[in-house]
Amino acid sequence: MPLALAQARAAAARGEVPVGAVVVDAQGHVIASAGNRVEEWGDPSAHAEMVAMRAAMHLRNKRKLVDCTLVVTLEPCAMCAAAMVHFRVGRLIFGAYDPKGGAVEHGPRLFDREACLHRPEIIGGVSEQESALMLKDFFDQRRKKPHNIQIS
Amino acid sequence: MPLALAQARAAAARGEVPVGAVVVDAQGHVIASAGNRVEEWGDPSAHAEMVAMRAAMHLRNKRKLVDCTLVVTLEPCAMCAAAMVHFRVGRLIFGAYDPKGGAVEHGPRLFDREACLHRPEIIGGVSEQESALMLKDFFDQRRKKPHNIQIS
Repeated sequence: MPLALAQARAAAARGEVPVGAVVVDAQGHVIASAGNRVEEWGDPSAHAEMVAMRAAMHLRNKRKLVDCTLVVTLEPCAMCAAAMVHFRVGRLIFGAYDPKGGAVEHGPRLFDREACLHRPEIIGGVSEQESALMLKDFFDQRRKKPHNIQIS
Repeated sequence: MPLALAQARAAAARGEVPVGAVVVDAQGHVIASAGNRVEEWGDPSAHAEMVAMRAAMHLRNKRKLVDCTLVVTLEPCAMCAAAMVHFRVGRLIFGAYDPKGGAVEHGPRLFDREACLHRPEIIGGVSEQESALMLKDFFDQRRKKPHNIQIS
């Protein structure tokens, strides 16, 4: 989680929503880590989890992530949670809960659905406060921005 | 839809699940078209819709797809449907219904959820038979494969 949080901080510094993700293999080795790249890449699907999962599978020579853990600072959205099924992620550890956009413990709760083909082991709320605070700061900062614009 | 079906046929010829997608702009111009690239790229998120949406946004200089139609031969899964919200796809036209993996008219019905931030106009069942038959043929072919292996 510390590396995922560092990726989230780096994302914020690039003007991205601060979310970071790390894929760790069964031996505890970090295979891939990523932060949000939505703005930089102009790709709304470039959430930290998606970028990290794609990189991890590429580096593992196309092997799925059954024996891997995905660590992410925020509860995944429906796109990322559904992608985790496709990538067959073995374990999911996430930070802050996301009552609005989350799809694991909120909303469609995709892994709890009967038709779900693969359910990772799930541990939520790890370093929750640190992750949530980073997001709160980021959005507070954004809301303040218009006041900083000088009107001539 | 004919171009999406052609992309699906091309995907099948590459050994991919035959699904094709096309993004069309408000003037009816094709911006991007793609077939499944899951096997070739070793990327379980490389569904036809995802590849086409990413290409379209890239080619539109990062502009979201509010004024665009995404045409796809199969009802989108949860990953792709949720991505359509992130990409702000204006209209979705799909071919065959997918009672098992679909997330538009089946399963989590993501666009019908109250918390859904963006709902495209949806038209389903266009060229349904042709698309469904192509998928059926593909999976029938796959099931037959072991019988073709010569045992010496």
